[in-house]
Amino acid sequence: MMTHYLIDNLQYCNWSKKIFSQLREGGVDAVHVTVAYHEGFREMVSNLETWNQLFDQNPSLIQRGLSGHDVRRAHEQGKTAVFFGLQNPSPIEDDIGLVEICYQLGIRFMQLSYNNQSLLAAGVYETDDTGLTRFGRQVVTEMNRVGMVIDMSHSGERSTLEAINFSTRPIAITHANPYWWHSSVRNKSDDVLKELSLSGGMFGFSMYPHHLQDGSDCSLSQFCQMIAEAVSRYGIYHFGFGSDLCQDQPDEVVEWMRFGRWSKMPRNDSGETPMFPSGPPWFQDNRNWKNIRKGLEDVGFCEEEVSQLMGGNWLSFYEQSFGPM
Amino acid sequence: MMTHYLIDNLQYCNWSKKIFSQLREGGVDAVHVTVAYHEGFREMVSNLETWNQLFDQNPSLIQRGLSGHDVRRAHEQGKTAVFFGLQNPSPIEDDIGLVEICYQLGIRFMQLSYNNQSLLAAGVYETDDTGLTRFGRQVVTEMNRVGMVIDMSHSGERSTLEAINFSTRPIAITHANPYWWHSSVRNKSDDVLKELSLSGGMFGFSMYPHHLQDGSDCSLSQFCQMIAEAVSRYGIYHFGFGSDLCQDQPDEVVEWMRFGRWSKMPRNDSGETPMFPSGPPWFQDNRNWKNIRKGLEDVGFCEEEVSQLMGGNWLSFYEQSFGPM
Repeated sequence: MMTHYLIDNLQYCNWSKKIFSQLREGGVDAVHVTVAYHEGFREMVSNLETWNQLFDQNPSLIQRGLSGHDVRRAHEQGKTAVFFGLQNPSPIEDDIGLVEICYQLGIRFMQLSYNNQSLLAAGVYETDDTGLTRFGRQVVTEMNRVGMVIDMSHSGERSTLEAINFSTRPIAITHANPYWWHSSVRNKSDDVLKELSLSGGMFGFSMYPHHLQDGSDCSLSQFCQMIAEAVSRYGIYHFGFGSDLCQDQPDEVVEWMRFGRWSKMPRNDSGETPMFPSGPPWFQDNRNWKNIRKGLEDVGFCEEEVSQLMGGNWLSFYEQSFGPM
Repeated sequence: MMTHYLIDNLQYCNWSKKIFSQLREGGVDAVHVTVAYHEGFREMVSNLETWNQLFDQNPSLIQRGLSGHDVRRAHEQGKTAVFFGLQNPSPIEDDIGLVEICYQLGIRFMQLSYNNQSLLAAGVYETDDTGLTRFGRQVVTEMNRVGMVIDMSHSGERSTLEAINFSTRPIAITHANPYWWHSSVRNKSDDVLKELSLSGGMFGFSMYPHHLQDGSDCSLSQFCQMIAEAVSRYGIYHFGFGSDLCQDQPDEVVEWMRFGRWSKMPRNDSGETPMFPSGPPWFQDNRNWKNIRKGLEDVGFCEEEVSQLMGGNWLSFYEQSFGPM
């Protein structure tokens, strides 16, 4: 009998026993969580200290995720394996040795940039895309060596294509959707999707409203039809989910995500404080994964395909990506 | 057939392929190395980055040591397992969460103080000994929980006795000698040796000249007779070596060890720059362990006792001390 795994490869919740219980209720075997946006190294370590406490306080619900094997172990034990990732390379400062240190502290994904130009690559909101910088190429090589996954979700088109090409191991776009479905600056071009899938990389479909056609009003059917179209274009092996669920976060966190400490103007053009958008009704929290499963079945995916999309593909990717070759 | 292990539980060398080769030549299965004296957290991380490079560059000579099992594995593979320790708690700042982070980065020993008063305990050179501070008791409890060994080599008498008593797991004095043999302020009282051994702790005999009777002129026979006397007083199970070998270090490092950044007067009373003393002729580097073995045999220890003193006791201690209970 086939074992079905459920993996969400990007969440940034305000973590609590409530949310961990919902992960269990939804049958989520593994979740990749963001442990830093704009934090420096020492601040990221403080966030890891908080996670050490969460693991200590919730031993029946969650456990540390370091390898693909940990997903299987969590599944068997009825827990959720939590994998760490960085959405910005700020925690590695300008110090390549910190890549391995971060790996040793459990970091398994790192975005080379977050919206802005970083020391490594350009972000999606920059006008000019530098591609990979000199330091960026060094870091990609080091991430390949230690087995940390390059994530280009918030990086610019040229930088992303260069990362796919320059990396000797498949990379990921953990949370985004195709630009041909919804023309958000954060969604990814047909070129990127082609190159990513041809190189063995992984793409996580996002349920964050700004990445959805019709935003919060996007229907489950619309969403799943897009997935069917993506699979027909690029094959099924390269897709999973990265919901970008930001549950129970206060709206100030949107300012932190968008502006960190790099801007003194954390307001949009109309002077309003940015807010988290409401999630679509069919994905409010981790108890709703059964809706997604149903939606995939309804657009015609067979049981095996649903299983691949819901977690099987991410699990295969974890098994080949984490740690030295 | 009995397997003999050789463990040196304290060295602070200027590490190089040369010294790693000498460790192999001397048959050292494991060495506990100091990765910080007065460094802050981020500086300690830089030192760990250097160690990551050393492991990467010397894969046939050394490997990371995290557990007692790693000593057995290193022995089988003809390598030396390297265990990390801190001689001062400065890397944990005033943040108890950093104890577990340091453990996750491979730290297995931490001194609660280094000569001076620390946030945790008093050092041997302070006039008044506070005993364990409020933070100190919290940190001892946390070190007990995560399985990091409390080392009181450079701590004051009262602090040391309180640590032995307050800790729920045996502690170590990794590098010192008995005060009754040589009345250096760094050597340990009969009371401390009694309490340490009664509580299941470990004591590493030091070959650092300032800890030796007659300094650099101490004979091997003098040294081994002291060991025989200590074993007759406190039993054999609580003793091993912590040579305090500081090979190939420039003399400036003595200033760093003694004065860190806490003093602007890194000179002794006669205005001279402090220097490393010359090691005794029978222990110049790691190729000389056979001298120690011979010295122990010459004062009447049987094969099994020599094996316990040379590493067997440390290995047992590692196996019960590292990691959660």
